Amino acid sequence: MHGLRCIGCGEAYPVQEMPTGCPRCADIGTPASVEATFRELPTSLLSASSGYKFGAWLPYTHGLTLNEGNTPCLDLPRLAAEVGIRQLTAKHEGMNPTGSHKDRMSAQGISRALDIGARTIVLASSGNAAVSAAAYCAVAGLRCEVATYGHMPEPYARALHRFGTKRVTFKRSLDRWSYVRQQVEREGAFALTNYCVPAVGSPVFGVEGYRAVALELAADGCLPDHILVPTSRGDLLWGLYSGLRDLLAAGLIPHMPRLWAIEPFPRLSRVLAGASLQAEFEGQTAQFSIAGSTVTLQQKLAVEMSGGGAVATSDAEATRGAVQLAGQGLWVELCAGACLAALRSLCDRGQILPSEHALLLLTAKGDRDTFDVAC
Amino acid sequence: MHGLRCIGCGEAYPVQEMPTGCPRCADIGTPASVEATFRELPTSLLSASSGYKFGAWLPYTHGLTLNEGNTPCLDLPRLAAEVGIRQLTAKHEGMNPTGSHKDRMSAQGISRALDIGARTIVLASSGNAAVSAAAYCAVAGLRCEVATYGHMPEPYARALHRFGTKRVTFKRSLDRWSYVRQQVEREGAFALTNYCVPAVGSPVFGVEGYRAVALELAADGCLPDHILVPTSRGDLLWGLYSGLRDLLAAGLIPHMPRLWAIEPFPRLSRVLAGASLQAEFEGQTAQFSIAGSTVTLQQKLAVEMSGGGAVATSDAEATRGAVQLAGQGLWVELCAGACLAALRSLCDRGQILPSEHALLLLTAKGDRDTFDVAC
Ligand SMILES: [Zn+2]
Ligand SMILES: [Zn+2]
Repeated sequence: MHGLRCIGCGEAYPVQEMPTGCPRCADIGTPASVEATFRELPTSLLSASSGYKFGAWLPYTHGLTLNEGNTPCLDLPRLAAEVGIRQLTAKHEGMNPTGSHKDRMSAQGISRALDIGARTIVLASSGNAAVSAAAYCAVAGLRCEVATYGHMPEPYARALHRFGTKRVTFKRSLDRWSYVRQQVEREGAFALTNYCVPAVGSPVFGVEGYRAVALELAADGCLPDHILVPTSRGDLLWGLYSGLRDLLAAGLIPHMPRLWAIEPFPRLSRVLAGASLQAEFEGQTAQFSIAGSTVTLQQKLAVEMSGGGAVATSDAEATRGAVQLAGQGLWVELCAGACLAALRSLCDRGQILPSEHALLLLTAKGDRDTFDVAC
Repeated sequence: MHGLRCIGCGEAYPVQEMPTGCPRCADIGTPASVEATFRELPTSLLSASSGYKFGAWLPYTHGLTLNEGNTPCLDLPRLAAEVGIRQLTAKHEGMNPTGSHKDRMSAQGISRALDIGARTIVLASSGNAAVSAAAYCAVAGLRCEVATYGHMPEPYARALHRFGTKRVTFKRSLDRWSYVRQQVEREGAFALTNYCVPAVGSPVFGVEGYRAVALELAADGCLPDHILVPTSRGDLLWGLYSGLRDLLAAGLIPHMPRLWAIEPFPRLSRVLAGASLQAEFEGQTAQFSIAGSTVTLQQKLAVEMSGGGAVATSDAEATRGAVQLAGQGLWVELCAGACLAALRSLCDRGQILPSEHALLLLTAKGDRDTFDVAC
């Protein structure tokens, strides 16, 4: 890793904590996150690191790990035929150590925290990120503070209790963010998630951890035409995009898949149709992993630069998707079910063609979703 | 696979369903399970199969899969130092597709069911095996019937609901087994678990799936002096033993690790001290994955032939173990926590030495354990 660079204005910065993103872009009211720049990336998929499998493509080549990543790609021929496309693959992030893709963020992000001597990690999360951070903080010997809602699903609450995590509950999303800001600015805590309004996405070292998803796809020889990603503030989407972009530049993949942000109600969809990126988009959803009222520059850029877009999927459609994935043996969280529903929409609209190959990023296991009991 | 052989009397049988084990041994009141025999096993760890990674060592080289197995070995140096042994490793079976080691049994067992044209799978389970079978039946397109208790933990119940599994509830363990027997004998269902009293362990094709655990250890170069295995009827213990035995015979590992059955109250411990293998051993426990009142020949042979033994661990000790494993970032089911508690006992007793290397088989994730909330 060589330095940091604003994904909006391109300004370069030395390696440092920039949890609120690029100050220049923030000053003019269009917050933007920063990304890592590398002096030289590998020219092959063979990792130069004896640590993380794709450490040579990440900020930390070695660091904290619970054996996250290297999740399988499962071929779903029956569903592909039913939806009417050539090939359908699921990448099952639920097979990570704590059951979600967030483990990738925790590994790199908390490795950074250890590197700079932080003692406390703080984050705002309603579930997957909290449980993941709690696990990695436990093994790292760091204090973990989670700003969350009072009505957190029971299995998450049990996990946080078991990991000895400090849980601070709030009614409103923005109050959680204020708490994170306060802990960072007054107590010197290391932020693992966003706490800005307008939002910029999570701090850079965590987001960079998602680049490994792209590396794994390339290593597995699984390069689809389309990738559907449940999206809240776009950390996963951006990490995936940046990894694919660098693989393409290195000549290690032949084309850029179109990336699609799957959201529970129109947010990015409205921004792409002309609304302000800094607006608030209110909506109710049971897809709690991708709830939230903000849009980030990183998610907009990832879909625009890859030639994809955004698809809003209702809770009812997401539930039907999750039930159909269960029919393939995959018990996934509701927003991962939304991926399958969104795939059908994209096929109906002609944006995914019968001759093409789509991949669903199944972000987490269904264990902690209580929604479908009533369905 | 060449045939079947009784693990008790050694009688050979052609390949067939023998859900109640060896008839000769059953007739004389000492039921014994059968194991697969192979015409020729590989002479290296390189699989001859393009299907399962270690398919060449299993009954089915190809078959149903959700990408089970290949679970990581995590080094726990901090706990090793605290317990006072040279090396401590955890093999985290919670990272299987449905969160437990049972996925290995489901993959091989249900591959067999498909091979012989079965339409319905039936099993008695209070949790992990049920959720696993439900997932694999869903993708296999088979009906799945689970005989279980009324008070099944909520996350298991949700999973079964999502997978469309038929759930039949009973108050007593033996009634569940009667139901399985009836479905097998009257309806032609394929049994995935034991239904005999005295017990013989689960049908052979499923148990053989656990052999891959031994192969993975050898392939990872992780051959400890001791392996601690949470044990109910000893399916995992036997599969592990038989894999290690064959690896040793092939010269692919230098010695046989001692296998220790970890149980929630003395059952095998009493048999090893002279009680009848066919006796009933009543006891209450919150370690529901290894509850049950029976002992099997397979678990007795596995610990005896490997030079290990049995350790009973209370729920309170198991909880402390689970809390300590959470301190390493590992959220595991209660009986997996019992492994760590049992390790301390074995060290105290001088059965595991400070110079030695022990491995804990962490059988499943903690997501579905509700016990510790009240602790
Ligand atoms: Zn900028
Ligand atoms: Zn016999």
